[in-house]
Amino acid sequence: MATTQPPLRDGIFPRLLIRRELERVESSIRAQIHAFDPAVEPYVGYICDTPGKRIRPALSILVGGACGGVSVDHIKLGVIVELIHMATLVHDDIIDGAETRRMEPTANAKWGNSLSVLLGDALFSHALTLATDFDSIDICRRVGRAARDVCQGEIIQTQRRFDLTFTKEDYFKVIGMKTGALFAIATGIAATLSGLDEESAERLHAYGMKLGTAYQIYDDCLDLVGSEDRVGKTLRTDLLKGKLTLPILNLLETASESQRIKLNRRILNQEPLDLPVLLGIAEYAGAVESAVDTALRLIDECRDALDLLAPSPYRNALDQIGGYLAGLLQQCRK
Amino acid sequence: MATTQPPLRDGIFPRLLIRRELERVESSIRAQIHAFDPAVEPYVGYICDTPGKRIRPALSILVGGACGGVSVDHIKLGVIVELIHMATLVHDDIIDGAETRRMEPTANAKWGNSLSVLLGDALFSHALTLATDFDSIDICRRVGRAARDVCQGEIIQTQRRFDLTFTKEDYFKVIGMKTGALFAIATGIAATLSGLDEESAERLHAYGMKLGTAYQIYDDCLDLVGSEDRVGKTLRTDLLKGKLTLPILNLLETASESQRIKLNRRILNQEPLDLPVLLGIAEYAGAVESAVDTALRLIDECRDALDLLAPSPYRNALDQIGGYLAGLLQQCRK
Repeated sequence: MATTQPPLRDGIFPRLLIRRELERVESSIRAQIHAFDPAVEPYVGYICDTPGKRIRPALSILVGGACGGVSVDHIKLGVIVELIHMATLVHDDIIDGAETRRMEPTANAKWGNSLSVLLGDALFSHALTLATDFDSIDICRRVGRAARDVCQGEIIQTQRRFDLTFTKEDYFKVIGMKTGALFAIATGIAATLSGLDEESAERLHAYGMKLGTAYQIYDDCLDLVGSEDRVGKTLRTDLLKGKLTLPILNLLETASESQRIKLNRRILNQEPLDLPVLLGIAEYAGAVESAVDTALRLIDECRDALDLLAPSPYRNALDQIGGYLAGLLQQCRK
Repeated sequence: MATTQPPLRDGIFPRLLIRRELERVESSIRAQIHAFDPAVEPYVGYICDTPGKRIRPALSILVGGACGGVSVDHIKLGVIVELIHMATLVHDDIIDGAETRRMEPTANAKWGNSLSVLLGDALFSHALTLATDFDSIDICRRVGRAARDVCQGEIIQTQRRFDLTFTKEDYFKVIGMKTGALFAIATGIAATLSGLDEESAERLHAYGMKLGTAYQIYDDCLDLVGSEDRVGKTLRTDLLKGKLTLPILNLLETASESQRIKLNRRILNQEPLDLPVLLGIAEYAGAVESAVDTALRLIDECRDALDLLAPSPYRNALDQIGGYLAGLLQQCRK
């Protein structure tokens, strides 16, 4: 696996190639503010001004570039997918009681839960309305279904908190829905917009699904081993909230019966969880490492789909995203 | 104004004429459960099994009937609009901290706020996905925009709680968005589905908007003067939550300077509000009566739009809805 490039400080993809297109995404996200009532604009504006990595729009743009050229539609697709993502973040922050995101106060920290529930809803319905601009029922349907999957993935995750019968299979289903689905439409619909046949679009959909799944595994490892200062959001919340992520599921899987009983007690314990100790155990047992390996395998698999694209700087960039993500994952190992 | 019929116990429309169509709506709402992941079905099932007045689907059906016949599409439209309505109720109940609705525990009372936020989202995105079945981008767009308006109306309402500069103009804007918008697509899109020209569809859209606005005024009066046992939900919450509804805005408008100061103190006071006293004052000052009159005027206006329909039992029923609602409003007077 080629993981020679050092990971970029705040992203997993080479920004330079698509700098101008990403700027268009950024200004288009900001321009969405004006689709809302003047009384609602300031709230939407706060969310739209919050910087983000814009990974999903970058994927739409790169697939567009690799399939004959980035069009207005690829930019629009990126905006739609990012708006859905932003809406889910607003609701996630309510659910997680998160107070900061990317160093800024969350909407719920600023305006309370009630307004944030509605703000997420408004962003959500606006994104789905925007999808009608494509004049394609098929695309509207794919966007709607992906949005529904994201919500369902989150529901299952919430429902299975502190549930020690939660399996790895359940985990992969949940992260495929909550994260994979949006990555998958970012690349799959981008292919359709470029006029690719259904089979190719499906392969690029699968590329996004696998990359998104690997990305979520990275995010889940980061919650355990990352540095809050560098990541810019509250970490070490998953286990406290009862979310069983891949490293913990790996640990539970390899534990002996007596170890599992100890772990279960620790996880179910409502007293403050001694995370450094648990992390120490997880690393000692190779549970984080094994999660990293799983994500690296997914990255390898997803890169195969790129064979269908003609060589171009965009195809290279899509390939490099895998490399960058792999590099970031490697950092979780130590 | 014809208000001779006694109001039906649990609705504002003649159910007998469209009994079979409403049963189809009901079973179709229940069938939506299967569009969700098995792990999510029980939650969606609980919401879909909760009985509702189904006013919005009834309107779609009646417009269909009055315009040449009720088709599968009119049933589907009713289901979509009702699902959006149900999604907003799930989120409203979180925001209002409501524990019962129609005598049953709310989703938030049963499963907490986090799961209910996501459940509302899933219903929302499913409803918008379902709209793609019509194979009409125009209809998808109208559904998406109405959903966005509902959320925006709720945002403005939430943002302006305890805001004594909230005007009647603001009130009408808010209720037009949060309630009128869905009534309006229930009738307006039903007309489009029946092949009516744009102007006629717009007139029926306006019929729904005005009827929905009158209905919301009735609901707001009911919160002040209704009986919890008969209505089957927690009442007397609007003012406690700082929602300034039409009767209160009327009272503030007619108050003298010294009375307004007293009212403002009462409304802003965080101590328990002496509602029976305030209600007594509102009734004494004719503030509820004046709100009822406003709603009755809207009902008169909306009934005019029905002239464009050929005489039929369905047109009569649409006309009678106004009559029933007017009858219910009259009951708020005393």
